Amino acid sequence: MRVAELPQITADILARLRARAPRVHCITNSVAQAFTANTLLAAGAIPSMTLSADEIGAFVARADALLINLGTFDAERREATAAALEVAGERRTPWVLDPVFVDRSEPRAAYAKSLVAQNPDAIRLNRAEFLALGGAEPDDAALTRYALDTLAVVALTGTVDRITDGAQFVSIENGHPLMARVTAMGCAASALNAAFLAIESDPFVATAAALLCFGVAGGIAGDRASGPGSFPSALLDALYALDKHTLTEKARVT
Amino acid sequence: MRVAELPQITADILARLRARAPRVHCITNSVAQAFTANTLLAAGAIPSMTLSADEIGAFVARADALLINLGTFDAERREATAAALEVAGERRTPWVLDPVFVDRSEPRAAYAKSLVAQNPDAIRLNRAEFLALGGAEPDDAALTRYALDTLAVVALTGTVDRITDGAQFVSIENGHPLMARVTAMGCAASALNAAFLAIESDPFVATAAALLCFGVAGGIAGDRASGPGSFPSALLDALYALDKHTLTEKARVT
Amino acid sequence: MRVAELPQITADILARLRARAPRVHCITNSVAQAFTANTLLAAGAIPSMTLSADEIGAFVARADALLINLGTFDAERREATAAALEVAGERRTPWVLDPVFVDRSEPRAAYAKSLVAQNPDAIRLNRAEFLALGGAEPDDAALTRYALDTLAVVALTGTVDRITDGAQFVSIENGHPLMARVTAMGCAASALNAAFLAIESDPFVATAAALLCFGVAGGIAGDRASGPGSFPSALLDALYALDKHTLTEKARVT
Repeated sequence: MRVAELPQITADILARLRARAPRVHCITNSVAQAFTANTLLAAGAIPSMTLSADEIGAFVARADALLINLGTFDAERREATAAALEVAGERRTPWVLDPVFVDRSEPRAAYAKSLVAQNPDAIRLNRAEFLALGGAEPDDAALTRYALDTLAVVALTGTVDRITDGAQFVSIENGHPLMARVTAMGCAASALNAAFLAIESDPFVATAAALLCFGVAGGIAGDRASGPGSFPSALLDALYALDKHTLTEKARVT
Repeated sequence: MRVAELPQITADILARLRARAPRVHCITNSVAQAFTANTLLAAGAIPSMTLSADEIGAFVARADALLINLGTFDAERREATAAALEVAGERRTPWVLDPVFVDRSEPRAAYAKSLVAQNPDAIRLNRAEFLALGGAEPDDAALTRYALDTLAVVALTGTVDRITDGAQFVSIENGHPLMARVTAMGCAASALNAAFLAIESDPFVATAAALLCFGVAGGIAGDRASGPGSFPSALLDALYALDKHTLTEKARVT
Repeated sequence: MRVAELPQITADILARLRARAPRVHCITNSVAQAFTANTLLAAGAIPSMTLSADEIGAFVARADALLINLGTFDAERREATAAALEVAGERRTPWVLDPVFVDRSEPRAAYAKSLVAQNPDAIRLNRAEFLALGGAEPDDAALTRYALDTLAVVALTGTVDRITDGAQFVSIENGHPLMARVTAMGCAASALNAAFLAIESDPFVATAAALLCFGVAGGIAGDRASGPGSFPSALLDALYALDKHTLTEKARVT
C-alpha cells in the first residue's frame, strides 16, 4: 500500500463494510459497551456482547470478527475469552486485542501477554500500555520489533497514531484532544479495527483504515462539539456520514 | 379498543404514568442499562436494575412492573430471573420478556422458551427472534397463533410494529430508520412497555400505547438528529415532551 | 471556611485538580459507569473501574481516591469492596460512600451500615436513603448527629444540597429539576466528590466544592438542554468549561 492511497482505500473498505454489515463479537468492559456498540452500528457493523461461557462459542461462530478488551477484567471475562479464542482459532476469525490498563496491575499484564501469544491480528494500545507489554519506549524500532515478535499489526494511538506490521509503517495525525477527555474512545477504535478486519484481508491496511476513519470522525466531532459531553455523539454522527470526499480532504497520513 | 382511539388512549395512560411514577425493575443487559434507565425516567417511571440474588426479591416486591431482557445472558442474570419471577408470580406483577438474540444461540432460545412458559404479559421481539421462538415467518396468522399459544401480547417491532393478543391487532408505522443504527432501542421499548403495564390493566392496550409513544418519539428524533450519535438524546427529549396533540398528529396506526 | 468564600475556594481546588489529574478508582454500578467515567474525565480526573478481586488492590494502591457506590450490588462488588477498603485503609486513601437504594432492601441497608463503620470520608445520599441509614428525617439536627456519629462529611442532595461535618454547615441551591429525570446524576456527583477529596485535605471543603461544581454545571445544562436526553452531555460540557467567573456568578450557597 502506498500511504497516499490510504484515504481512497479506506473509503472502499468502508463501502464494503456498509454493504456487508459484518458481525463483531465484543468481549469488552462494561464502561465501554454502549459506546462501542454504537460505534459499530454507526459504521455499519452489527455488535454482540454476551459473555456467558454457555453460549459465547455460538456467538463467535456466527461472528465475522472478535474484539478482546481488558478494561474491566474479571473471572467471567477470562473464561469467556478462552472459549471465544478457541472458536476463533478453529474458524480463523480475525481478532483484535486491546490491553487496557496493563500498566496498572501485574496480573493483568501477565494475562495480556498470554493473549498476545495466541496471535491477535492486531493489538491497539497507548504509550503506557506499550511500555508495560513491549518493555520499551514505543519508538519506530521498538514498534517494528514488537510487530515482528508478535506477528500482529501494532497500532499505537495517541496524538499521532502509528501503525506497523513490522514491514510497513503509517502515521495518522487526525483525531482531537477531546478524545482524551471521554471514556471508551480507544475501546471503540479497537472494535472498529475488528470490523475492518472482517472486510479487508490485509490486517495492516484494515487497521490503518479503521483508525483513519475514527480519527477523521474525531476531528470533525472536535470542530462541532461544545466540549467532552457533546463530543461522542458528534463523533458517531460524523462516522455515520463519512464518505470518500471527507476522508480524502481530512486525512493527514504519512 | 378502536384503533383510531389509540393516540387519545395513549395520551391518557402517559398522563397517569407521569402522575404515578411506577417503579420498573429491569433485568437487562449491561449494554442497554443506561439508555433503558433514561427512557423510563424520561417517560416518568422509576427504574431499578440490581441483579443480586440476595436482594432482587425485595426490589421486585416493591416494583410495579418487571422487565426481563436476555441481551447479555449469564448465570447471574438467570439466577436473578428465577428469583424475580417467583416474587412477580406471587404478587401478580406484570412483566415483559425481551428475548434478544435468541436466533444466535440454541441454549438461549431454549431458556427463552422456558420463560415464555411462565406467562409474560407481553413479549417484544424482532423478526429473527420470532423465527427462532415462533418457528415461522411472523405473518398475521403466525403472530395470532403465537399470542394464543402463549397467552401473551406479542409485539413484533421493525419498520412497522405489529401487536396482537390473538384477538385484536394493531400496526404502528412510526419510528425511524436510525433506530436500527443505535443500540438498546428495542430494549428500551420493552422497558417502556413494562412501565405501561404497571398503569393500564389491558395488556394489549398498554403494549400498543407504549410502542406508539416510543415510535412517535423516535420519528421526532429522526427529524431532529444529525445521525445515530445525536439520535438517542433527541428521542429522550421527545419522549419527555410528548403530549396528546403530538401523539394525535403523528400517530400512524391501523 | 466562610461560606461566601466557597465559590473562590472551589475554583482553586478545580484548578489544582486539572493540573494534577488525580486517579479515582470507582466501584460503581454498571448503569452509572460510563457517565461517571465521563464526569471524572470532564473535570480533569482519571477514572478506573475494574472489580476483579485479583487486581483491584493494585488499582486502588495507584489511585488517589476511591468511590464505593451500591447501585448494582452483588457478590463480585462486595468482594471488590473488601479488597479495596483494605488497601485504602493502609494507604489512607480518601473514599466516598454512595449508599444507593438502601431504602429498597434490608440486606443492602445492613451492608451499607457495615461500610459506614469503616470510616468513609464522605457519605452522599438522598432523603430516602438517609431515612434508611440515619433513622430520621434529614433535618439539620439529624444530619449533624449522623455526621458526628460517623465521623464522615454527610452530603444530602436534592432540590437543595446540604453538607455538614457536624460542626460546619453549607446549603447549595444550584442544580436543576431535570437532574431527577436522568440516571447516574447522584452517582457521578459522588465520584466527583472523591476526586475533590484527592486534592483538598479538608473533607468538608472538598465535598462542598465538588457539589457546587456539579450543581452549577447542572444549572447551566438545564438552561441549555432541550430535555433529559440532551441534559447529560450539556452538563459535561459545562463542567469541562467551568471557571472562577461562572462559579462566582452562579453559586447560590448559604
